[in-house]
Amino acid sequence: MRLFKKVVIVGTGLIGGSMGLAIKKNRLADTVIGISRRKSTLSLARKIGAIDIGTRDFNAAAGADLLILAVPVNTLIELSKKLAKIVGLDCIVTDVGSTKEKIVEKLNKLFPMFVGAHPLAGLEKPGIANACPHIFKNTICIITPVKFSNKKSLCKITALWKALGSKVIFMTAAEHDRIAAAVSHLPHAAAFALIGSVPAKYLKFAASGLKDTTRVAASDPELWSQVFLSNKKNVLRSLGTFEKNIAKIKSAVRREDCAALISILNRSQQIREKIA
Amino acid sequence: MRLFKKVVIVGTGLIGGSMGLAIKKNRLADTVIGISRRKSTLSLARKIGAIDIGTRDFNAAAGADLLILAVPVNTLIELSKKLAKIVGLDCIVTDVGSTKEKIVEKLNKLFPMFVGAHPLAGLEKPGIANACPHIFKNTICIITPVKFSNKKSLCKITALWKALGSKVIFMTAAEHDRIAAAVSHLPHAAAFALIGSVPAKYLKFAASGLKDTTRVAASDPELWSQVFLSNKKNVLRSLGTFEKNIAKIKSAVRREDCAALISILNRSQQIREKIA
Repeated sequence: MRLFKKVVIVGTGLIGGSMGLAIKKNRLADTVIGISRRKSTLSLARKIGAIDIGTRDFNAAAGADLLILAVPVNTLIELSKKLAKIVGLDCIVTDVGSTKEKIVEKLNKLFPMFVGAHPLAGLEKPGIANACPHIFKNTICIITPVKFSNKKSLCKITALWKALGSKVIFMTAAEHDRIAAAVSHLPHAAAFALIGSVPAKYLKFAASGLKDTTRVAASDPELWSQVFLSNKKNVLRSLGTFEKNIAKIKSAVRREDCAALISILNRSQQIREKIA
Repeated sequence: MRLFKKVVIVGTGLIGGSMGLAIKKNRLADTVIGISRRKSTLSLARKIGAIDIGTRDFNAAAGADLLILAVPVNTLIELSKKLAKIVGLDCIVTDVGSTKEKIVEKLNKLFPMFVGAHPLAGLEKPGIANACPHIFKNTICIITPVKFSNKKSLCKITALWKALGSKVIFMTAAEHDRIAAAVSHLPHAAAFALIGSVPAKYLKFAASGLKDTTRVAASDPELWSQVFLSNKKNVLRSLGTFEKNIAKIKSAVRREDCAALISILNRSQQIREKIA
């Protein structure tokens, strides 16, 4: 099912590279062009078949009918100004950013055919070396249209994510950012703080509990700093709730209040059992 | 390699049941007897081959040459007083408790042949239904002898854990409890607090980040309450360190200090990469 003629992916890392692989595997486009800062990334992306052509020249985006922005939030907003002068007004533009309010606000002004998206997929290991065409299968992709979003663009971006195997859910960027803070940004912040609390000499005793709990702390620090900062209000609120829950456990342990402790852990266990 | 004649396992849950399975699979004992409160547990333990005989009668421990205590910390200390009147003075006694100082202190007084142990293995799903003879393979088992620990007992308990596939490490109970607080009790407390911070209506958006980070929050609340309380001092200290690290991230986000945030996350990422 061909959806696009010329797809340009800016940022051929884990997500951009995986999208390239999946688009080519499913023959959703005639050509996939990758744009990246690093020659080594482009060369690996071409080698594994994530892109047909790799370049560091943004002018390669001219004539694209789909532009995918798959770089960290701040970089994305910066590059967009440059790219808006290169792509045509009829080019469908989308992104995969982990926060949406800032991006949607800015990119709607730059691109008439913009529709924001966020695939709730990924791995803690970044980079094209970990790209895989199947990482979107059976995951949720949140699409965040606004009232004036172009209908054709919205249809095509929806079709793209469905073709990549995702379940598509529509919501506002503000709602997305509240949800993402709780289910994604907070767990990442907690994991970074948690592994930072373990003395180095004890690391060799790490069993599955510590490993699972801190797996996402292997994620890219620069990318996640940008995510936290671009969703400041919601991230601070989620961290506040988390701190209160930590304090409750601490207080029950300090008071040696076994009944209170069991009640807190029981509630958590019941919530955890609702997710697979 | 037969190590024991009559092994009695008190508590045929995940760990006790898995030990039974592994002992029988490796023919380390002539007979394995399971003692549990629940008939259904005993019947399932017998069915899957974790024990030869199941009973609710503690008198079945008479004549054992190995007594394994595989029940939660508080229960373990309570039951030990009863069991000390039943087993012979020459019976080797061990446990699998997640904290060691309290247990080692009390059980050394009750059993002359006691040696404490803690296999750093397990699953978040408790119970005999999840038992498996292989869960100890390639994991660490910490053994916590004291100066006056019986040599024969120490040798046999070491041989048992090696036969089950674990790497055995010796240390004091106090050292064990400091390590366990950091690498096991803290991650569990964090996971319980974390999943309790996610609004129920957002749970359907949980991706691998939240799932991994909170997997251990599916663990048994009663067992973990006892673990936290029996290691109060160290757990409170670890939680305090964790709170400081959360506060550092929060402060950097609030100040929008990208450089400070990247530096915190970088340090954590580097620590995380030291464990597999």
